[in-house]
Amino acid sequence: MARIGILIDEMFEDSEYEKPAAAFKEAGHELTHLGVEKKLVKGVKTGLPVKVEKKAGEVSAEDFDAIFIPGGYSPDHLRSHDEVVAFVKQFAGTDRPVFFICHGAQLLITAGVLRGRKVTGWKSIIQDIKNAGAEYLDREVVEDGNFISSRFPSDIPAFIKACLSKLKRGA
Amino acid sequence: MARIGILIDEMFEDSEYEKPAAAFKEAGHELTHLGVEKKLVKGVKTGLPVKVEKKAGEVSAEDFDAIFIPGGYSPDHLRSHDEVVAFVKQFAGTDRPVFFICHGAQLLITAGVLRGRKVTGWKSIIQDIKNAGAEYLDREVVEDGNFISSRFPSDIPAFIKACLSKLKRGA
Repeated sequence: MARIGILIDEMFEDSEYEKPAAAFKEAGHELTHLGVEKKLVKGVKTGLPVKVEKKAGEVSAEDFDAIFIPGGYSPDHLRSHDEVVAFVKQFAGTDRPVFFICHGAQLLITAGVLRGRKVTGWKSIIQDIKNAGAEYLDREVVEDGNFISSRFPSDIPAFIKACLSKLKRGA
Repeated sequence: MARIGILIDEMFEDSEYEKPAAAFKEAGHELTHLGVEKKLVKGVKTGLPVKVEKKAGEVSAEDFDAIFIPGGYSPDHLRSHDEVVAFVKQFAGTDRPVFFICHGAQLLITAGVLRGRKVTGWKSIIQDIKNAGAEYLDREVVEDGNFISSRFPSDIPAFIKACLSKLKRGA
């Protein structure tokens, strides 16, 4: 069982959160929703409500075995908060898994942790990923060390499979 | 009178479009709304409707004396369309004015035209601006050659003043 911190804010991409979160829970992992404030945030497409249980500024990398960053506009909101960026930077510096999809890489760019890494993401942020010093790959799942990334909703099944496999091998 | 092309898509920041556009029109300039498809797009805050009159892929830099890129999520949408990026790249390569605010710089990053330029923008994209080779300045208006940029809605009055002054000096 792994303790997974999910970084989430308003206007997350509903399916990119909901499907992986359900699969992680089904596999017995413990989910904690982390954000800016302890409040209800909603998905951009269906308005799916998610309760932010802890402020990212009040947790430590040691509290989690993995983190997961769903896409949509949520990563853009999260990365304008210094304490969220600081937590992500601290966590990404460990060897523990960092899962992200779509716009999720935006938060890692602001945290300054993509240099030299192989990652994928949504088309609009490809140039940002490259400018951050990462190698962009147009694949449904890219795994590079502790980073597992995918591009968009139709990659979700492959993304879930890769994340669960990584957690099974030892988070 | 200048011919101003406004690059706009769904979920633009209402006031960042509406106020400058009204001021440009009031000053006698001619506005053409450019986007991905000829359709109605809406603002993210108030649902303000704007009609996209021409596809960015069907116009040329020669058709305009200036371009304006409002913020919100519109620039993120626009930059996932190659023909929009190509038009912006072509236009930015001229000496004619490029006005952008908030997330507007995202479109210029994907067009690869920010290297060596002084610009400003919304907090969440500061690292992207720097990684694109630009110098980020935390000021209400930054003017560098043909580029005039601002950070967020409260900068709008200063932004409008700088843009109108630039047009007056000869677009």
